[in-house]
Amino acid sequence: MSTVAVGEGSPFGPANLPYGVFSTPGGAPRVGVRVGDTVVDLSVLLGDAVFAAPSLNPFMAQGPDRWRRVRERVAAAVRGDVPDEAQHPVRDVRLHLPFEVADYVDFYASEHHAANLGRLFRPDSEPLMPNWKHLPVGYHGRAGTVVVSGTDVVRPCGQRKAPDEADPTYGPSRRLDIEAELGFVVGVGSPLGARIGVDSFADHVFGAVLVNDWSARDLQAWEYVPLGPHLGKSFATSVSPWVVPLAALQAARIPLPGQDPRPLPYLRGREDWGLDVEMVVEWNGEEVSRPPYRHMYWSPAQMLAHLTVNGASARTGDLFASGTVSGPERHQRGAFIELTWGGREPVTVKGEERAFLQDGDEVTISATAPGPDGTRIGFGEVTGTIRPAYAPK
Amino acid sequence: MSTVAVGEGSPFGPANLPYGVFSTPGGAPRVGVRVGDTVVDLSVLLGDAVFAAPSLNPFMAQGPDRWRRVRERVAAAVRGDVPDEAQHPVRDVRLHLPFEVADYVDFYASEHHAANLGRLFRPDSEPLMPNWKHLPVGYHGRAGTVVVSGTDVVRPCGQRKAPDEADPTYGPSRRLDIEAELGFVVGVGSPLGARIGVDSFADHVFGAVLVNDWSARDLQAWEYVPLGPHLGKSFATSVSPWVVPLAALQAARIPLPGQDPRPLPYLRGREDWGLDVEMVVEWNGEEVSRPPYRHMYWSPAQMLAHLTVNGASARTGDLFASGTVSGPERHQRGAFIELTWGGREPVTVKGEERAFLQDGDEVTISATAPGPDGTRIGFGEVTGTIRPAYAPK
Repeated sequence: MSTVAVGEGSPFGPANLPYGVFSTPGGAPRVGVRVGDTVVDLSVLLGDAVFAAPSLNPFMAQGPDRWRRVRERVAAAVRGDVPDEAQHPVRDVRLHLPFEVADYVDFYASEHHAANLGRLFRPDSEPLMPNWKHLPVGYHGRAGTVVVSGTDVVRPCGQRKAPDEADPTYGPSRRLDIEAELGFVVGVGSPLGARIGVDSFADHVFGAVLVNDWSARDLQAWEYVPLGPHLGKSFATSVSPWVVPLAALQAARIPLPGQDPRPLPYLRGREDWGLDVEMVVEWNGEEVSRPPYRHMYWSPAQMLAHLTVNGASARTGDLFASGTVSGPERHQRGAFIELTWGGREPVTVKGEERAFLQDGDEVTISATAPGPDGTRIGFGEVTGTIRPAYAPK
Repeated sequence: MSTVAVGEGSPFGPANLPYGVFSTPGGAPRVGVRVGDTVVDLSVLLGDAVFAAPSLNPFMAQGPDRWRRVRERVAAAVRGDVPDEAQHPVRDVRLHLPFEVADYVDFYASEHHAANLGRLFRPDSEPLMPNWKHLPVGYHGRAGTVVVSGTDVVRPCGQRKAPDEADPTYGPSRRLDIEAELGFVVGVGSPLGARIGVDSFADHVFGAVLVNDWSARDLQAWEYVPLGPHLGKSFATSVSPWVVPLAALQAARIPLPGQDPRPLPYLRGREDWGLDVEMVVEWNGEEVSRPPYRHMYWSPAQMLAHLTVNGASARTGDLFASGTVSGPERHQRGAFIELTWGGREPVTVKGEERAFLQDGDEVTISATAPGPDGTRIGFGEVTGTIRPAYAPK
């Protein structure tokens, strides 16, 4: 038995306690909690089979009372001594996709992002569509291609057609981009025909992850009318390995920046679910953007209420993401197509000019949020490196 | 032991042998094959644990050589005697969702449907988007709300705004519709970064089902720009309980009606995967439409090749559907919004006028296709009844 070391100012102190799935050499994937630079093996600490599972889904399905009790027990344990066999240095473990993704929905909840993309994709129209301030616009993405941070991203091939070209051509994407987002993981679902009210958010949502919704802008621009993005997004979506429980985000909750017109009643909550999360985007190790989540127009509670208001069921493992987080300033934009204004205003990264991603480039998104007593809690990071496209047939 | 009775001209003769998941009172769901009006229990007939599973997924994952051998064994068994304990009258069993749906993608492969919808949704523009003849347009739907035939459909609530209204209102959909489609089920997936070539279709796809992609047109019309349909579709998608194996569709294969412009090389197959499937749509028991699948512009082999050309992985249980099947004639339209031209030309159903679905209405889609020697094989049916919306909050 020994205490778990937590450095002064660590973003993984006892007020955070994010959950993940890890393995040690020769061992099976199992559930752990990150404390400082240590992974605490919950299957050993709590001796419960639910934590020997290779995903968080069985635990997440147990519901908010159980989440609260486990969090209290883990917090008490790390204030005292933890068995040495339950402690693994984070650098010695492999981190896996923390949950099995059921359905994945991607929203579009930043007014700055939606307006920027509108200007770039539809320069002759109003930047925001008429529906945008009435409902959180979103669409289903590909659950099967959600991967854990660190997974390489192979440059996708597909069809693209520049406005001045007569016909589309096939080949590797030339406008490969990122979208820095926050994702929310459903623990307790809802049956078909029911709905999750806007004030029931915390009864259903287990926690939050960082998301990089890799985007091939040239594929997307050609394919997306009228049924929305498909191959421009479906090749990979990366998530951080640590799921920060909602309970750790209490000090980060703030009012939304303001909604005008007033949303319909099913979208009006009594509770604040704006979140003061500060994100950082690094391109090949150089910071290029600091997207502030506090500017997001729609809250995650509104997203979930909208998602189920038609009676769609929700399942344990459903992931819904915010859409790109972009603030009002240029250095707050969470996608490179915005940051470089369609590629026309490149940025300098480690002395090289960049508009979109080149093979070998690495992008890392990290985030922190206020914790109790002036501390900050961390989401860790979601990172990925671009590999060359396979030779097209 | 006894022979399995198959009536003269049964669409479930020994050339069909579709797979499903069934249960008898007090028994667990398991895999069966339909022969005439009998369900043959494969867990008893073949004594293999893979057929004791509650879904086809484990069997589908075993691949095409195994599918062929099992089909041969079942065909041989039903030509001779089958143990009585393996035979259940289909009226005495409960039929379940036959496979666990991994990801669900809905295409838009009928030129007649896409053009009709374009005229109805965007009357001031060209009916077909510029991309439509270059790629099979599709989008991800909600896998978690795919339900088996016979499941009631609760009328969805949501936001809708007529063109002459200033603001959206919330309430039950007033334009509830169907989409008669064929769906294809992936048995053998492909890893991330790989692709499934257009001529590898039969190495990956296990079989086909009927699909009713229930659609709330008022919700869809308001929400779908710019990211595509979401709540207008996500409340329920019904599939038939029997998966017709590709091997049973050999006699139904025909050339596509013709593609101009010639598709890019990755969409050019050597094999014909047009399908001469005849669908019938019944509204409260009265036939209202006969959508012919042979007019579809894009083949399912092209859909799967497109779906994975960006390196997206495929999984056992992935479902991709054709989109509404509509032919050139009015009585061949597979969605009521087309059949009634946006509700302006109602149809008479059992003496009552109908434009969209009313509470209590039942829709049944069935289909047959050519089998060997002038026979026909059947898909069975996908049916559902509309239940009233829950009182909106």
